[in-house]
Amino acid sequence: MEMAAPHNQASSNDLDLLDRYWRAANYLSVGQIYLLDNPLLHEALRPEHIKPRLLGHWGTTPGLNFIYAHLNRAIRAFDLNVIYICGPGHGGPGMVANTYLEGTYSEIYPNISRDTDGLRKLFRQFSFPGGIPSHAAPETPGSIHEGGELGYALTHAYGATFDNPDLIVACVIGDGEAETGPLAASWHSNKFLNPIHDGAVLPILHLNGYKIANPTVLGRMGDEEIRQLFTGYGHAPLFVEGDEPTLLHRQMADATKQAIESIRAIQRTARDGRKTTDLPKWPMIVLRSPKGWTGPKEVDGLKVEGFWRAHQVPIANPRGNPEHLNLLEQWMRSYQPELLFDENGCLQPELQALAPRGGRRMGANPHANGGLLKRELKLPDFHDYAVKVPHPGGTVAEATRVMGQFLRDVLRLNAETRNFRIMGPDETASNRLDAVFEATERVWMESTEPYDVHLAQDGRVMEVLSEHLCQGWLEGYLLSGRHGFFSCYEAFIHIVDSMFNQHAKWLKVSRGLPWRRSIASLNYLLTSHVWRQDHNGFSHQDPGFVDLVVNKKADIVRVYFPPDANSLLWITDHCLRTYDRINVIVAGKQPAQQWLTMQQTATHCDAGIGIWRWAGTEVDGTEPDVVMACAGDVPTLETLAAVNLLREGLPDLKIRVVNVVDLMTLQPREAHPHGLSNRDFDGMFTHDKPVIFAYHGYPNLIHRLTYNRTNHAGMHVRGFKEEGTTTTPFDMVVRNELDRFHLAIEVIERVPGLSTAAAHLKQQFRDALIEHALYICQHGEDMPRIRDWTWPYGHYVATDTA
Amino acid sequence: MEMAAPHNQASSNDLDLLDRYWRAANYLSVGQIYLLDNPLLHEALRPEHIKPRLLGHWGTTPGLNFIYAHLNRAIRAFDLNVIYICGPGHGGPGMVANTYLEGTYSEIYPNISRDTDGLRKLFRQFSFPGGIPSHAAPETPGSIHEGGELGYALTHAYGATFDNPDLIVACVIGDGEAETGPLAASWHSNKFLNPIHDGAVLPILHLNGYKIANPTVLGRMGDEEIRQLFTGYGHAPLFVEGDEPTLLHRQMADATKQAIESIRAIQRTARDGRKTTDLPKWPMIVLRSPKGWTGPKEVDGLKVEGFWRAHQVPIANPRGNPEHLNLLEQWMRSYQPELLFDENGCLQPELQALAPRGGRRMGANPHANGGLLKRELKLPDFHDYAVKVPHPGGTVAEATRVMGQFLRDVLRLNAETRNFRIMGPDETASNRLDAVFEATERVWMESTEPYDVHLAQDGRVMEVLSEHLCQGWLEGYLLSGRHGFFSCYEAFIHIVDSMFNQHAKWLKVSRGLPWRRSIASLNYLLTSHVWRQDHNGFSHQDPGFVDLVVNKKADIVRVYFPPDANSLLWITDHCLRTYDRINVIVAGKQPAQQWLTMQQTATHCDAGIGIWRWAGTEVDGTEPDVVMACAGDVPTLETLAAVNLLREGLPDLKIRVVNVVDLMTLQPREAHPHGLSNRDFDGMFTHDKPVIFAYHGYPNLIHRLTYNRTNHAGMHVRGFKEEGTTTTPFDMVVRNELDRFHLAIEVIERVPGLSTAAAHLKQQFRDALIEHALYICQHGEDMPRIRDWTWPYGHYVATDTA
Repeated sequence: MEMAAPHNQASSNDLDLLDRYWRAANYLSVGQIYLLDNPLLHEALRPEHIKPRLLGHWGTTPGLNFIYAHLNRAIRAFDLNVIYICGPGHGGPGMVANTYLEGTYSEIYPNISRDTDGLRKLFRQFSFPGGIPSHAAPETPGSIHEGGELGYALTHAYGATFDNPDLIVACVIGDGEAETGPLAASWHSNKFLNPIHDGAVLPILHLNGYKIANPTVLGRMGDEEIRQLFTGYGHAPLFVEGDEPTLLHRQMADATKQAIESIRAIQRTARDGRKTTDLPKWPMIVLRSPKGWTGPKEVDGLKVEGFWRAHQVPIANPRGNPEHLNLLEQWMRSYQPELLFDENGCLQPELQALAPRGGRRMGANPHANGGLLKRELKLPDFHDYAVKVPHPGGTVAEATRVMGQFLRDVLRLNAETRNFRIMGPDETASNRLDAVFEATERVWMESTEPYDVHLAQDGRVMEVLSEHLCQGWLEGYLLSGRHGFFSCYEAFIHIVDSMFNQHAKWLKVSRGLPWRRSIASLNYLLTSHVWRQDHNGFSHQDPGFVDLVVNKKADIVRVYFPPDANSLLWITDHCLRTYDRINVIVAGKQPAQQWLTMQQTATHCDAGIGIWRWAGTEVDGTEPDVVMACAGDVPTLETLAAVNLLREGLPDLKIRVVNVVDLMTLQPREAHPHGLSNRDFDGMFTHDKPVIFAYHGYPNLIHRLTYNRTNHAGMHVRGFKEEGTTTTPFDMVVRNELDRFHLAIEVIERVPGLSTAAAHLKQQFRDALIEHALYICQHGEDMPRIRDWTWPYGHYVATDTA
Repeated sequence: MEMAAPHNQASSNDLDLLDRYWRAANYLSVGQIYLLDNPLLHEALRPEHIKPRLLGHWGTTPGLNFIYAHLNRAIRAFDLNVIYICGPGHGGPGMVANTYLEGTYSEIYPNISRDTDGLRKLFRQFSFPGGIPSHAAPETPGSIHEGGELGYALTHAYGATFDNPDLIVACVIGDGEAETGPLAASWHSNKFLNPIHDGAVLPILHLNGYKIANPTVLGRMGDEEIRQLFTGYGHAPLFVEGDEPTLLHRQMADATKQAIESIRAIQRTARDGRKTTDLPKWPMIVLRSPKGWTGPKEVDGLKVEGFWRAHQVPIANPRGNPEHLNLLEQWMRSYQPELLFDENGCLQPELQALAPRGGRRMGANPHANGGLLKRELKLPDFHDYAVKVPHPGGTVAEATRVMGQFLRDVLRLNAETRNFRIMGPDETASNRLDAVFEATERVWMESTEPYDVHLAQDGRVMEVLSEHLCQGWLEGYLLSGRHGFFSCYEAFIHIVDSMFNQHAKWLKVSRGLPWRRSIASLNYLLTSHVWRQDHNGFSHQDPGFVDLVVNKKADIVRVYFPPDANSLLWITDHCLRTYDRINVIVAGKQPAQQWLTMQQTATHCDAGIGIWRWAGTEVDGTEPDVVMACAGDVPTLETLAAVNLLREGLPDLKIRVVNVVDLMTLQPREAHPHGLSNRDFDGMFTHDKPVIFAYHGYPNLIHRLTYNRTNHAGMHVRGFKEEGTTTTPFDMVVRNELDRFHLAIEVIERVPGLSTAAAHLKQQFRDALIEHALYICQHGEDMPRIRDWTWPYGHYVATDTA
């Protein structure tokens, strides 16, 4: 076992002061969990001083406070720029206590002043209605990481570190969190960290041995096994172990010093151009300390300190049980509050002096309130990338490839400020964004081979086969004030459903905090989507992420279905200019017909929804017989093809085509700021005519968004109905009855009073579906006339299926 | 670096035969990707022999085939019981080729015969409409693992291994998959494997160095780092490295032998009672071989073999490019098909002899078609656990605690057959299922301390802080023919959204394959739900998993909201008796009023929905003025409390109470087998009376399920609207306007023609909400009269707010 080296030891006095600071943080942590009043124990503790509901997590807190105090010391000693990521999120009382001790808390929340009254309020508000949550949260100064769902501390830490060469992100990882998948993968993030351009992450693996009711897997591993595991992960672990504070302070001071010196040495070597080919072995600290350290050893005859019973509230009923009350008072007095705070409840000056100053305080570091640091993204004029569309359907282009050209120049324009990155799970090229590689490369810090392509140590495209890492890195990058973009296969974005949820919650709460400055939106491109995963099959087919997104607060989420390349450009430009949102763009990568000129695009995308008069057959001044609505590139194609089939066969039928780019327009205005007024909606969808709606995803979402619209009873939605397999592109839409023929048949069935020609036509369409089925089974590909679809192709029925 | 020891070397002849077998598998893999006809190259390759659309993944396949051949050899040599989990799922052609070579494929699919005609069909069906997917899938014999979304191979492998002492699960992990979070965490599964009662997993980490367009993180790590990492994970890695087949065959044969001997030694030691306190170091194989091994070295002047360009279809256009056609023919002939297959296309007898026999063939092993092995779960009579309910609301109980008693006895009854396990992320006790610890313990193979409780090496409750592992273990356990149960905090089940999706897809496809026997359903208990996470706060609050579930095929999914303990018992018993489904049960763990006797429960749960006449104020023979519907325990409580408020204040108002247990009853019968007929629905919800629906989750789901019901326009749904924080239980419902007062106010507002007393009452309810807000801000807990709610409490309004 490698213990932190004992050279250059801290003085006893120094560590004694530090111990007092730690005790102050512990005292405040316990106070938050328990006390309504009598914050400094100026009198004996009485039941009415105790909160009626005891909520909070003590177990992890003393360790977090210990680390915080030692980081403060290192920040002052080395003049460091450090933020603290608290993986054990339930250690909220510790984060609040420390930011209060250093003064940040009272600066942000002046009513929580640095005196007895402030202390009382500090204690009372914790886990109290109208107060603050029990975990590290947006409300917590210095936090960019919400406690609760575990797994993302380290990936957030790396995200914040990229392109912040002077920053050190100290990241505490609990041994509970260390069991999760996303965290286990995150250790490899060190292979994407460039010691020249990026800062450093200092992981502190806190093995306190227990979860809620179990030992931890890593806590019960021996030091040798831990050393092997983390050396294998590319770290040089420093061990700090024990339960005797005096000894541990010394070890921790040494380990912290050694870690900082090691980080500086790695950075110096790299930045002086003396870098070796090997990846550096970044330091990390393994801290083994008892769960609930310094808390009660036993309660009611059962072991508490150093065991999982210390996890939440170690003494259950001090309000009702005098023995418990007494135990709590002993515990709190063991920190000697009278030596920590003056009579007025203010931290003693010699302890105040231990905190760093100004923006060096971890609670006040602007990197943890990234909006303070963010710089506007420079964007090229997206019109320059427009696809020329001489007439609707007259050009074929790959939408994401065009987008890639735009993103390439976004990368170029912001190359110097280094504040824009693209994340993706090994799919940037597959998603046809490869023009970006004209401007930059993929980050790659491991060794390379002569035949490798598009890898570089300072690349700005981050690819790793983990959606969790992509999402977490990007969140950390945005939360620390930068911009970015995540492209992903549509089906596999579900892997980060839960991370999306938590980020949406973070944004919702942050928006209500005036001191939290807005950050750049989290932008997703979902491509390689359900309708063009025919080659990969059912396991790659699922358009349901959007359903999850729409559950979130309306002011946070946006969902876009640009139907072609120009609209994708417009929407991308728009999303990159927004703040505090999550934008989801769904667009295909395959060659497809282009519909709109850039001028038409601007009008259409600005409204988010519109009637495509050129595509329909309606007659000015009269109501159409039927509305064919579409959202998504493939549904748009099939809808337009269906109109064409019907135009040919039923020339008198008046069809209106409505295209939806911004899904939120379908909701009532009261439900979403982008929602159409009922008047506008009714004007577009009519009061009572059949609406055949071809939607990219699960049909129910459209019903859900429109259920209280006037003509909802008239809406018939088609979309993905879980019929997936490896087949041809057109067969995918046929299997889900979203193809031109099924759409056209439904129009014939829904519009009352059509001629007998309609019945004949319907039969032709049915025959065409049979012909399709036979053809693909025989040939293994779509009929050429479907693949080579060009506009207008109104003769299909007449020439081929008659 | 530890190379596999060279002792007991295989003979050259032996390995030469094995090489031919491997070549046969490679040949068939290439054939599937490319050929429509001319399967044995009996004539020169012509463009028309080539498929028009080339789909499939070559890169990983030769390595998979190599491993398969060596496992066959070990199975025969040691008479092993082995299944093969193919983590690199796109290696579908390899899995199909091998099961074809061993004869399994033709037994299951007799039209794919072992002759030239069968070969032609085998090739043609691959990635062909109406054929088979390109990845390992339910259609693939011997597979319990679908390719596509990466990350779950190893957790599936462990799941299949638990309680199968004679089984070895060989699990191939690609270096792409190794970058994912779930996979990175899965390595620690070895700490939950009991060498006495469980079988063994043999992980084979296949480092072929590349993903779609990138090197891999682990592929570029050196052997020493790999060795450290996996030793740290608790394994003893054996390295097999190179690109020269002859040398690699020998290394692989030795490594396989060594691994099997090591597994046997570990098992023998443990089973003879000679086990040491240390966890065994289970063997694993690290295989470094070139991506696209034995394929074309270069195509169009670009490196292919040993590079990512080999990932999919290495030669792009043999149908259109004569040079490509020539290259393909050279490649295929390099395997010398004429030495592998006889004139009729049948594998040469000496090669046939290399496959194991009967059920020892990995494609025919019944553990990979678990339904063949499953035994019915023995269930106690759930009536024995019923809570006595003298009158509705007359008893308080914790629903999940009662369920825990039932589960305890399920564990007892099936202790001997060892075919039932409970999974949970450290929450079994927190979710109040702790009665199960009277029957068993948590599995814990690492060291224990004297004060540890409920840990045992043969425990049957599996707890690890990773929802991914819980889900994956359970899936593997079910797919190999056993039963189980997963309890989880409601909000964090989103972590496995994507795994749920993939399992639902697996079930859907499996149901269409007559040879796949049905497996036990995957049962979730979601508890610690949104309405009782007030102490943990917003990060723990999200009821949206159900929305995802409902997107899946109706015949696969069921969602239950039992309103009390007896109904939870009934539903649990029901779910444990079902097959091929995913059952989601949402139920609270907190003390709550009980409503139904077990007899009432049976009627109610059997129907899935029902009118609670005793709870309403309707008059027989007349239509009610309003329907108050509820789904979920807390919404039920608040609805009944609201009825009580109204009963007191507006005695003439006729309220019907409808309780929904089975959410699927709301859907039309055509959409779901449990759906109510329109007639029954209308009879319950009326044609036009206002329906105030209190729902557990996001309100939109109810609209989505009922949008085409007659009275949909009359439905007003309340549920979670993303208003979460740390507060009191009652305040959580108030913030989301789902509480009794908001419900009662809405009734007053929706029912036309009420007296002026109603307006007065409404004001009283508003006042009560204000009083609540003031009270909790002052006291930090709910008003006692709300916490101590007892039935009937109709005097609340009169005594407290008047």
